[in-house]
Amino acid sequence: MQKLDSITPIITPFTDNKVDKDKAVRHGEDVLKGGMKYLFPAGTTGLGPSMASGEKHDLLDAFAHIPDHVILQVGSLNLEDSIYLAREAKKYKIHAVAALPPYYFTGMKREWLIKYYTKLSSEYPTIIYNYPDTTGYNITYDMVNDIKKAGGDVIGIKETTFNMNDILNTKMYVQDFKVYTGPDQYILSAYRLGLDGFVSGASNYGYKIINKIIENYDNKDGDRYQFLLNELADLSRKYGTISSIYDMVEIMTGIDAGNPREPFFKLSKEERNSLEKEMNEAFKKYNFKP
Amino acid sequence: MQKLDSITPIITPFTDNKVDKDKAVRHGEDVLKGGMKYLFPAGTTGLGPSMASGEKHDLLDAFAHIPDHVILQVGSLNLEDSIYLAREAKKYKIHAVAALPPYYFTGMKREWLIKYYTKLSSEYPTIIYNYPDTTGYNITYDMVNDIKKAGGDVIGIKETTFNMNDILNTKMYVQDFKVYTGPDQYILSAYRLGLDGFVSGASNYGYKIINKIIENYDNKDGDRYQFLLNELADLSRKYGTISSIYDMVEIMTGIDAGNPREPFFKLSKEERNSLEKEMNEAFKKYNFKP
Amino acid sequence: MQKLDSITPIITPFTDNKVDKDKAVRHGEDVLKGGMKYLFPAGTTGLGPSMASGEKHDLLDAFAHIPDHVILQVGSLNLEDSIYLAREAKKYKIHAVAALPPYYFTGMKREWLIKYYTKLSSEYPTIIYNYPDTTGYNITYDMVNDIKKAGGDVIGIKETTFNMNDILNTKMYVQDFKVYTGPDQYILSAYRLGLDGFVSGASNYGYKIINKIIENYDNKDGDRYQFLLNELADLSRKYGTISSIYDMVEIMTGIDAGNPREPFFKLSKEERNSLEKEMNEAFKKYNFKP
Amino acid sequence: MQKLDSITPIITPFTDNKVDKDKAVRHGEDVLKGGMKYLFPAGTTGLGPSMASGEKHDLLDAFAHIPDHVILQVGSLNLEDSIYLAREAKKYKIHAVAALPPYYFTGMKREWLIKYYTKLSSEYPTIIYNYPDTTGYNITYDMVNDIKKAGGDVIGIKETTFNMNDILNTKMYVQDFKVYTGPDQYILSAYRLGLDGFVSGASNYGYKIINKIIENYDNKDGDRYQFLLNELADLSRKYGTISSIYDMVEIMTGIDAGNPREPFFKLSKEERNSLEKEMNEAFKKYNFKP
Repeated sequence: MQKLDSITPIITPFTDNKVDKDKAVRHGEDVLKGGMKYLFPAGTTGLGPSMASGEKHDLLDAFAHIPDHVILQVGSLNLEDSIYLAREAKKYKIHAVAALPPYYFTGMKREWLIKYYTKLSSEYPTIIYNYPDTTGYNITYDMVNDIKKAGGDVIGIKETTFNMNDILNTKMYVQDFKVYTGPDQYILSAYRLGLDGFVSGASNYGYKIINKIIENYDNKDGDRYQFLLNELADLSRKYGTISSIYDMVEIMTGIDAGNPREPFFKLSKEERNSLEKEMNEAFKKYNFKP
Repeated sequence: MQKLDSITPIITPFTDNKVDKDKAVRHGEDVLKGGMKYLFPAGTTGLGPSMASGEKHDLLDAFAHIPDHVILQVGSLNLEDSIYLAREAKKYKIHAVAALPPYYFTGMKREWLIKYYTKLSSEYPTIIYNYPDTTGYNITYDMVNDIKKAGGDVIGIKETTFNMNDILNTKMYVQDFKVYTGPDQYILSAYRLGLDGFVSGASNYGYKIINKIIENYDNKDGDRYQFLLNELADLSRKYGTISSIYDMVEIMTGIDAGNPREPFFKLSKEERNSLEKEMNEAFKKYNFKP
Repeated sequence: MQKLDSITPIITPFTDNKVDKDKAVRHGEDVLKGGMKYLFPAGTTGLGPSMASGEKHDLLDAFAHIPDHVILQVGSLNLEDSIYLAREAKKYKIHAVAALPPYYFTGMKREWLIKYYTKLSSEYPTIIYNYPDTTGYNITYDMVNDIKKAGGDVIGIKETTFNMNDILNTKMYVQDFKVYTGPDQYILSAYRLGLDGFVSGASNYGYKIINKIIENYDNKDGDRYQFLLNELADLSRKYGTISSIYDMVEIMTGIDAGNPREPFFKLSKEERNSLEKEMNEAFKKYNFKP
Repeated sequence: MQKLDSITPIITPFTDNKVDKDKAVRHGEDVLKGGMKYLFPAGTTGLGPSMASGEKHDLLDAFAHIPDHVILQVGSLNLEDSIYLAREAKKYKIHAVAALPPYYFTGMKREWLIKYYTKLSSEYPTIIYNYPDTTGYNITYDMVNDIKKAGGDVIGIKETTFNMNDILNTKMYVQDFKVYTGPDQYILSAYRLGLDGFVSGASNYGYKIINKIIENYDNKDGDRYQFLLNELADLSRKYGTISSIYDMVEIMTGIDAGNPREPFFKLSKEERNSLEKEMNEAFKKYNFKP
């Protein structure tokens, strides 16, 4: 079995509420050294929707020395901003851009979504970022094909949904197109179901576990490591969505990944200690040495 | 019956994708002259979540000559930005700020939402903007009371929900607090159920109809005008959420309110003509002279 | 203000898992004496969807001496059964039947729902029982009008939804048609918004409170009593949906209303005592003497 | 790869609205001869929730000659009825019973669901039938383990959900337990993800296609046949949920499977012809000879 594309939606380190490029680079390089192939800055885990256009550009700049490993998330509620970033991505020659559809607003027409992706991907090859639970829009295979027919250069999709049927449909019905799973829980399934890769927020801290999943994708140990990763992802949510990842990175890799930015509130010391304790229990339960 | 607070979440006129302050002022003043009491810039209808912090400030600036009539929506995914705007609001002495809770991101802890509103409203009196369908969070009466207990200066709530029970609960269980309905459809109900006011996207173009609803709140004509407004709001959604309002303003008031900004795509001429035709049919059906 | 139609979806007393007609009659008569106008047997509160056709007929039989006060819920997943009961209702000359749409099954065509109600109501005047949360189908005003056009004799609707807009639309757009609110929380709103009546599960035990709501619909005491009723309904859900009502009836009226039937499990003694204590606290809080 | 358990939720043939045992036997035997291992009468596809207890017993009786191949769905809103059928199942020595949780009613306590399954499965080995979209309750792995701890003899679960993560969790965290996929779309995935079997409504008519999926589970042809089956399932929903299956059985197997029962309305001749035409197009598209 060929190795699938592995993608890390890296957290954005903030210092005094500003993007901290140095910390971003140190963390990003660690993740790549750990075996992941692409960094995906300004995604959901990277707090992308909370960032100004210029801040996303800071991240592009931070990783200018390793463009082949970068997929910048440029989707936003202002298409001009998104297009600007796609043009910059072209200058920087990164692997591709990715784009959330519009979010927050309800009632967007299907044709507007098609236009949005067609315009944007005409600037630079684009990976659709489908996350129906947060955006309210499900980008289904027929829409992808309509974007392609309209001339859009969409090259893949990140499917952040537990609905495996939607994922398999897109894999089946869209030609020459990479289909990546989004939930941390679906890494093993991406291998077993013949998909093209996976995006995993948990890879910010858990790339060693992911390597074990990959090595053992065809035996029971694969399940064991996948379920360990799932439990860490559950802990992350329990202690504070996204915020906890900054601590988990430091706990598992020793790297200082800075802070989140409010309204994502930093974990208190008590919370962090309790989180670390529960992480260690999970490691023991699944017989994993971090 | 005393007149309730009437609030218009004004659209933001864009010219070449920039905020057009002159057009904003002309439109805003027209709405106030038409009988509405407050302008609510940078709300959902105003495409607030798509605007940079500086663009929201442009709107604050545009209405600096009529601060008593302004409620600026400052909620965002970056609390520092929101706080900055609340401080500016204080300098400009506007009536109050309003704030959406964080949106897009799932799994925010209840205590984070409390902190968010407590910190923000400590800067300037704040109207909570509750819109569960777009934000994913329902700010219920018990949360409002917890914000107050924590020292927050929240003075009212815009309830954009069809769940009247949630609205009535907040009215009953929170003391010294203004409860405003959000859906266009609930203006008449705000009167009949003894609430404090209403926010109506349809008032951008339909303030004359709203005046009729108010005059006739205690008789059958009130229903007739309310249902006319509802049908216009339905048409607005049918022809393109928010985008259509720019056309409807020009059709009903003659004022050029500029353009929306993509991914909100402007209506084509055919769409606009068809919309105008359907609007005229609605006027006839309800025997209303615009 | 004219008194609205008041309807009690009475619980079904079971003894050894059989319908206990005597207890049903004693409880039903008490509720009518308490001021309610109609009994609504075999509704949701009456566990109708769990009852065999013959058991629903038992309830029809139990109330044969007061047919003018009876609205039997006959909707089911077997239209032949429902039609049989509608024909029996005709023989017994009760006020009307009511009918849930099909439930459980997803994907029923709109035209099937229209046919279902048209066929059924051709047998006897029918009140539509709209409860989208449990059935998965929202019977909207346009569907009601289509049923009427197809020859169905639907005379009203029980709207069990918190979406007041749907309720008001049906009131506005369907002619000669009674619109009843379903949630306990909307009794006061039914008066203030000019609807035709209300159905309240809480009236099984709380009819005295309901009388107070009605007497005070135009003043602040109306709110007070409505919110007391709401809190009792909340307690009911907390202690065990529907099961708790059997205890609440005995606690507030002294009448033995039998038992629910599993999988609705009877409250333990501890649970009942705790429920009674919380009910008394609610009475005190709202200054009500039961 | 070992062959997985294959289960057909057979439709119930009605003649004049009564269960037609002869037709049920003819259809059921055809499906078994076609390669399926178990019949699952009175499931959703079998219109189980619309059937009286005695009618479910008729189906038990109809298949008394092949008890090893029968899993009777006995779950209902009256636990006494369900227990009665489980006891009958014991007498008939069928493979197992299956049981939906209570449905329609909202707000059932978790402990009630545990009790329901514990009591029922104490009578006879029980397969949990988890179908959150229709029942409103998601029976998760922790609940299954609690049922086992309470002494229940639950031996497997039919997971009718597109959420593959829930399915995989139950497989991982419940010991000695069969996990079957429910959606037609997940037959191939059941093989590739190492589950124990599948239940497929489409197997009523499409068992030949299913055999092809199984033969080719590890190559691209597996996908092709799976997607053909998916398209047939889509057609089935388009032409009328469940009702269309009666026609599809006759079209593909030549067997007269009787009629559905209203409110499941029989397809008109035009609808049937159109359905048959679309089926033939699907066969051609996927190069399948029925």
